[in-house]
Amino acid sequence: MHFASDNTSGVAPQIMAALNAANAGHVPSYGADAVSEAAVARIRTLFEAPEAAVYFVATGTAANALSCAILTRPWQAVFCHREAHIEVDECGAPEFFTDGAKLVLVEGEHGRMSAGALMQTIATTGPGGVHHIQRGMVSLTNATEAGTLYAPDSVGEIAAVAQAYGLPVHMDGSRFANALAALGCTPAELSWKAGVDVLSLGGTKNGCMGVEAVVIFDPERAWEFELRRKRAGHLFSKSRFLAAQMLGYLGGGLWLEMAGHANAMAARLSEGILGVPGASLLHPTEANEVFAVLPRLVHARLRKAGAEYYFWPDDPAPEGPADEMIAARFVCSWATTGAEVDTFLSLIR
Amino acid sequence: MHFASDNTSGVAPQIMAALNAANAGHVPSYGADAVSEAAVARIRTLFEAPEAAVYFVATGTAANALSCAILTRPWQAVFCHREAHIEVDECGAPEFFTDGAKLVLVEGEHGRMSAGALMQTIATTGPGGVHHIQRGMVSLTNATEAGTLYAPDSVGEIAAVAQAYGLPVHMDGSRFANALAALGCTPAELSWKAGVDVLSLGGTKNGCMGVEAVVIFDPERAWEFELRRKRAGHLFSKSRFLAAQMLGYLGGGLWLEMAGHANAMAARLSEGILGVPGASLLHPTEANEVFAVLPRLVHARLRKAGAEYYFWPDDPAPEGPADEMIAARFVCSWATTGAEVDTFLSLIR
Amino acid sequence: MHFASDNTSGVAPQIMAALNAANAGHVPSYGADAVSEAAVARIRTLFEAPEAAVYFVATGTAANALSCAILTRPWQAVFCHREAHIEVDECGAPEFFTDGAKLVLVEGEHGRMSAGALMQTIATTGPGGVHHIQRGMVSLTNATEAGTLYAPDSVGEIAAVAQAYGLPVHMDGSRFANALAALGCTPAELSWKAGVDVLSLGGTKNGCMGVEAVVIFDPERAWEFELRRKRAGHLFSKSRFLAAQMLGYLGGGLWLEMAGHANAMAARLSEGILGVPGASLLHPTEANEVFAVLPRLVHARLRKAGAEYYFWPDDPAPEGPADEMIAARFVCSWATTGAEVDTFLSLIR
Amino acid sequence: MHFASDNTSGVAPQIMAALNAANAGHVPSYGADAVSEAAVARIRTLFEAPEAAVYFVATGTAANALSCAILTRPWQAVFCHREAHIEVDECGAPEFFTDGAKLVLVEGEHGRMSAGALMQTIATTGPGGVHHIQRGMVSLTNATEAGTLYAPDSVGEIAAVAQAYGLPVHMDGSRFANALAALGCTPAELSWKAGVDVLSLGGTKNGCMGVEAVVIFDPERAWEFELRRKRAGHLFSKSRFLAAQMLGYLGGGLWLEMAGHANAMAARLSEGILGVPGASLLHPTEANEVFAVLPRLVHARLRKAGAEYYFWPDDPAPEGPADEMIAARFVCSWATTGAEVDTFLSLIR
Repeated sequence: MHFASDNTSGVAPQIMAALNAANAGHVPSYGADAVSEAAVARIRTLFEAPEAAVYFVATGTAANALSCAILTRPWQAVFCHREAHIEVDECGAPEFFTDGAKLVLVEGEHGRMSAGALMQTIATTGPGGVHHIQRGMVSLTNATEAGTLYAPDSVGEIAAVAQAYGLPVHMDGSRFANALAALGCTPAELSWKAGVDVLSLGGTKNGCMGVEAVVIFDPERAWEFELRRKRAGHLFSKSRFLAAQMLGYLGGGLWLEMAGHANAMAARLSEGILGVPGASLLHPTEANEVFAVLPRLVHARLRKAGAEYYFWPDDPAPEGPADEMIAARFVCSWATTGAEVDTFLSLIR
Repeated sequence: MHFASDNTSGVAPQIMAALNAANAGHVPSYGADAVSEAAVARIRTLFEAPEAAVYFVATGTAANALSCAILTRPWQAVFCHREAHIEVDECGAPEFFTDGAKLVLVEGEHGRMSAGALMQTIATTGPGGVHHIQRGMVSLTNATEAGTLYAPDSVGEIAAVAQAYGLPVHMDGSRFANALAALGCTPAELSWKAGVDVLSLGGTKNGCMGVEAVVIFDPERAWEFELRRKRAGHLFSKSRFLAAQMLGYLGGGLWLEMAGHANAMAARLSEGILGVPGASLLHPTEANEVFAVLPRLVHARLRKAGAEYYFWPDDPAPEGPADEMIAARFVCSWATTGAEVDTFLSLIR
Repeated sequence: MHFASDNTSGVAPQIMAALNAANAGHVPSYGADAVSEAAVARIRTLFEAPEAAVYFVATGTAANALSCAILTRPWQAVFCHREAHIEVDECGAPEFFTDGAKLVLVEGEHGRMSAGALMQTIATTGPGGVHHIQRGMVSLTNATEAGTLYAPDSVGEIAAVAQAYGLPVHMDGSRFANALAALGCTPAELSWKAGVDVLSLGGTKNGCMGVEAVVIFDPERAWEFELRRKRAGHLFSKSRFLAAQMLGYLGGGLWLEMAGHANAMAARLSEGILGVPGASLLHPTEANEVFAVLPRLVHARLRKAGAEYYFWPDDPAPEGPADEMIAARFVCSWATTGAEVDTFLSLIR
Repeated sequence: MHFASDNTSGVAPQIMAALNAANAGHVPSYGADAVSEAAVARIRTLFEAPEAAVYFVATGTAANALSCAILTRPWQAVFCHREAHIEVDECGAPEFFTDGAKLVLVEGEHGRMSAGALMQTIATTGPGGVHHIQRGMVSLTNATEAGTLYAPDSVGEIAAVAQAYGLPVHMDGSRFANALAALGCTPAELSWKAGVDVLSLGGTKNGCMGVEAVVIFDPERAWEFELRRKRAGHLFSKSRFLAAQMLGYLGGGLWLEMAGHANAMAARLSEGILGVPGASLLHPTEANEVFAVLPRLVHARLRKAGAEYYFWPDDPAPEGPADEMIAARFVCSWATTGAEVDTFLSLIR
């Protein structure tokens, strides 16, 4: 019962096959090979963005931090949700890559910025001149860190606020496939058509070995990205092996299939949990993560049976009453099986 | 005839097998898995350094720049050879990761710093106080960018100069295996026993997909490295796939076998080239790279036959006399075949 | 009626005299002169800190940002009040000087961090390891941006929390003299005896031309400070003219006399304002700043009469009902006269 | 006999008078005062540059580093002479302010880059793409660190090379007045008319207390400068006292008068030295600095008589033969007297 994270799973067989297939002979390094070109072309087609610049890096933190770096200057603010990955889980990577920009935190329930809160936060940031951090960019996460979604309309509302202040919009899409699978819209509708300028398109959490694409819809920013990527040590010499993962991942709809499966497993888990007396959800289950509150007794039983997951947001005290309610996060992935979920559910009942 | 770089080759079958084997089930992410532990243990054993901290990243630039970052402060100098990879080929990554340290260039023939030139350069850097960049660290490359070697004694001479000024020593070992295979010494003799504090141990150029180990012989610097690695986006969630490459690479002596093969191919190429009337070498061929001067006529014939390689250091004028001598670099790898070399040699004769 | 800021005033005559007196002949540059030595000695004596390292810079932003830089690493948090000058009014200088540290905001009424809120914020920052910003330092401001004070006991409570986590403490004392004059304690009691490690000791706002001292009670951090100061362009060649200001400022109790005067003027203003029907204070008046809420009608009368001050925190709408209550900030300085205050008060009645 | 530096002298009486005069009443802070406006206007007029943005900072390092910061990106090269102040004497300030740009050193005799060497250095920097530092800007110093000059034609040659590569040009003019006084041209001829985009116009070394103007001939770069200045702690609250120095300095031709005097003293010193048997000059004396080689015996006599100056570039061994020739630097300033020079010369004969 592996619910600790979607990154404890391995590589989907089709993607591993793509890696093995790409390992033939000599090809130019640093992205000038046919596999890399094909992967870029695939993404342009999928996103209906023939002009987009597309680059591959190996981690989500790199994708996000490089994206922020090309969209801000050091004296500017990155507006993001209080619980955004770039704020909470990247050890200050955005500050490092931007040479010291400030993340200014926006409130919002269930991991989502509200357009109103964003507008208020932007409006009160730096209007008075040189003494203050200036407005820089907006970054939103979809699916969010709370396992919830922004539908295209909601992305559009956020982007409209940004545009009203002339700010570019970045989307941290480390779970973009989960969002897409759940919402049933097109990649374009959830990105540039809704006002996103740069997208971190995740692969790693959803069955790849380690690859994320950065999709830059305005190619004017491309060359700076290339220089920053190299300077940050994120340009791979054997780039074909990043691209091959992406090709395997996006080919034949595999990415959405796997994300849809993970979402379905989370939904099944979520419904089962709600059947436990007293259990409740911290956040609605909209993608592949379940945030649930369960009695200490149930947690003890799950842990004893070997279930892997994290308490949320922090570990509880080691001792306490059996009926004490304790929150936890359960993440499903492409590799989660119905049997795992059902075993889990049988334990909590 | 693929002599453009050792990174145009693919992944050695044994290493690809190790990747496939590591792809089983769920394991903890971020390096807390058994494969990662085994790879660390393997390196500690190979280097006779049971206390060493060992970390994996995917690119040589990341390995070098992170190493520099933990060994200097922003107002210090990194002493390195004028042609060092960190100076010439990393788009300023050391400056980025160190928050602005200055690379101070040391002269020396055939890509090697001389101990005397290093001492002179250190002595004249920043002795006078707060107005000047302070002395920070020494970085040397082995095998060098000129395809030459520092034997353990030579490393020791460089390190002795550094130690006389209290400076730590980094070795860029993106081709450390080539050096080791050529010199026939132990990993320890070529690193910490000779005075190296931190080693970038390359895998990518020598048959891996994309992995370098940073071996920190003084573990006091380990935690800072971990934070900087994460902050730079170089901590992989599915870390097992970096470690698996290293395990496959270092297992059963594969790394030295492949490096030895590449060196042998370069030697064969080098000897053959010297048989051409008028041909000469820019640098002695001591590892897997050949820097040779050939007539324009010969280059034309090679290019026409599809040979891939770079002119060195720059492209010549497009037109010129047939007997004009033009320098080029030819790199051999684990994947270079004797047949490739022989075809090449038959063409130049 | 000049209440816009304490930095619209000029230089106290005694300090200008000190500057003129220091302008005799040739002296060594960069702080190796007798005036600089005397100023350092004066501060060491006043603070009962014979070992303290003392440096002069010309702006409060420089003093604060350099102090933060020597007390944190780039991946660490600077804990400060949500309204701290370093957060709000320095255009990201702390991020710049620290190479990207993160300011983590602590709540608290009237510009003061509460020890409980600080403990809670520190406790929830980065306990989980490498993914998160690490705990770095605490910075508090005294007198605060809200014109309130931390008494030595309160400083001690804040410092005790910091020390419980092993964190150093910086005090932004751009109005330290105002705090001292109001509290009637010794400089040592309000700084190192209460747990402050590094103090920005302001001069500019209180009658100097442009000088702040950074007092580093642990001299181990001194050399790094010197290098960072030079690297940031804050080492003056003709340093005697910074030191001379400080000597004049601290000589014969002038600094406390001027600060006491400014505080008294603010108290007089505050009391007078409270006499206005409907008027109230946003914050208690404890030093030289008054934050008051007055009817729009009164503001109109004041502005018409030429009174200079800022609305707070933002400008109100240009039009509104005459009895609408609007907040503003009134700052008194060494140069504020009783007549100015009384004219002001006669207008608002 | 004060020849250690032009910054050991004090403040010219006329400039001190301007400071005293500016100290009247309350004025707006941060540069929005009448004195600041007048100083800006004065510089625009003197430079025939009515659109120029003009800012004041207190140190030459700040002026230079901020200028570099607005003219480059972190992955670019700053081309400068090997002995430039920004390379040698600012403890890495340019690297700090530019977030890690690389200073690429250009050769040239007597402290001057030759246009040919500059072209060669630019041409071989980063033409090959993303792996290399990119071309950024050119910085030249006038008068140079060797006490020599670039005449307007020479500046124009350097600027023409820069322009051929699309690079902006910065001039470090900490001794611009000395250059101007010696060359007899106009400020415009020696700056923007010759192709300079941004000028650091020194005041401190030539009789001011601590002020340099940054003159940005293309005002598009102005707002970024303002933000960077604030962020670096170089925006003065009581800005009138920077501006007042500049007004006093530039008023009535004082700056050129003082610089001309310093130059004349250096010429007299230089001629006298050449009368000593065996003495010679390291560099031609073209402004206010003399680099001369004198016998150890003469140095001993000078030191014994209390003459202050630095050996150059480093201190000699403490003991040696009496006729050993040892180089030293002698700097004259606005405050150097003919009597000092003559006493000095009488000693060396």
